[in-house]
Amino acid sequence: MKEKLTVIKVGGKIVEEDASLNQLLNDFASIEGNKVLVHGGGRSATRIASLLGIESRMVNGRRITDAETLKVVTMVYGGLVNKNIVAGLQARGVNALGLAGADMDVIRSAKRPVEDVDYGFVGDVKKVNAALLADLITKRIVPVMAPLTHDGEGNMLNTNADTIAGETAKALSVYFDVTLVYCFEKKGVLKDENDDDSVIPHITRAEFEQYVAAGIIRGGMIPKLENSFEAINAGVSEVVITLASAIHTADGTRIKK
Amino acid sequence: MKEKLTVIKVGGKIVEEDASLNQLLNDFASIEGNKVLVHGGGRSATRIASLLGIESRMVNGRRITDAETLKVVTMVYGGLVNKNIVAGLQARGVNALGLAGADMDVIRSAKRPVEDVDYGFVGDVKKVNAALLADLITKRIVPVMAPLTHDGEGNMLNTNADTIAGETAKALSVYFDVTLVYCFEKKGVLKDENDDDSVIPHITRAEFEQYVAAGIIRGGMIPKLENSFEAINAGVSEVVITLASAIHTADGTRIKK
Repeated sequence: MKEKLTVIKVGGKIVEEDASLNQLLNDFASIEGNKVLVHGGGRSATRIASLLGIESRMVNGRRITDAETLKVVTMVYGGLVNKNIVAGLQARGVNALGLAGADMDVIRSAKRPVEDVDYGFVGDVKKVNAALLADLITKRIVPVMAPLTHDGEGNMLNTNADTIAGETAKALSVYFDVTLVYCFEKKGVLKDENDDDSVIPHITRAEFEQYVAAGIIRGGMIPKLENSFEAINAGVSEVVITLASAIHTADGTRIKK
Repeated sequence: MKEKLTVIKVGGKIVEEDASLNQLLNDFASIEGNKVLVHGGGRSATRIASLLGIESRMVNGRRITDAETLKVVTMVYGGLVNKNIVAGLQARGVNALGLAGADMDVIRSAKRPVEDVDYGFVGDVKKVNAALLADLITKRIVPVMAPLTHDGEGNMLNTNADTIAGETAKALSVYFDVTLVYCFEKKGVLKDENDDDSVIPHITRAEFEQYVAAGIIRGGMIPKLENSFEAINAGVSEVVITLASAIHTADGTRIKK
């Protein structure tokens, strides 16, 4: 019988404003048992890049990462955002350890090949060092993972935080009974996008396909749910899509096999 | 009989230029046995602060760290400089782990009290979690330490890299036979500041005092040597002051009890 583990992904908006960050840290600290936090930081990266005179270019919601932008995301995600979260968790009695992919070779990636779009220094995950993470977690250390990987040849690479969370959850499902929580700006997947209370509480693959066919689920929610089903198929016990303020209540939309 | 451990401190100039950083990473990777790297990053912090419109103010060679400057040093030291070193070492087969003080509570500090000067968010080291570092080191993990600490109340603090190196070396001397290497822009402590080859190969406390009285050792070398003798008195076996390019040769000035 595997121990339970919760992997929580929070986006940039939550961790970049003091009030929402404090609330998140309180909520995350209150979660019992084994846990991992994966964070974004895109808004800060865009803001600091702009102050440094570096234009942020996004394609399909992903950041084009040239050499100067890579420096910005390395310092903002790996330094500013990550260390403030870690310090905040330490103050709440959580023995957090900030990790970028290069640290102990925790996430190795390959630079994305140029096809229609040259995303630049963006890494597609090749391997998550799950044995190492599992060893830390069983010692009550809480990994706080920045959306950065490395290629094993000396280069940091920019990797989407949803992907880091999904790949980490899948890799850790060998060792733990994993719940993956994607924090979202809505209470969950909505039946009616104009009604914040129309949360679909459970969703199966077949139901998902029906909702998509009916036009009820669309846009950015489709890849999020595709990733969720992929995680479930790869061994993750449950995926929850919910508000950041609900991570300790486990409300939201639940996806199971 | 304790195992040997080498703690190496390198300044900002070395780690911030590609050629000297590559040389350092090669040299550091070639050092046998247990090792720790402590790095600075002040020049990058000054450059990025300037680009962000934040003025860098130094008093007695120490940076006045206001709230905005703290954000800059957290991202530059903890993110940009630290993660590039870690990725570079991973590429050379060194299982590096980047750490700021908040990570696993590795270095706790207290905000420096305001006396003649208000240094702002600068931390004086209270405790190095040496047991934890020793455990990592015996697992062949190589800590790469940024000059950042935390106060245990959620705040990162800026701490001088020489101090981080000295305090870490002292704390680890309980577990290891520690050599502390301060990289320097000269080959060592010079008898004649105009003759780069006039390195004093060994120096005792009594000799140091004679050199100071004679005006041969002066300026910034005095606190560096004071710190070195303090480290020796606190259990460090040997302190070496040398060129960054000589860390694997162990030339330079050696200080023993």
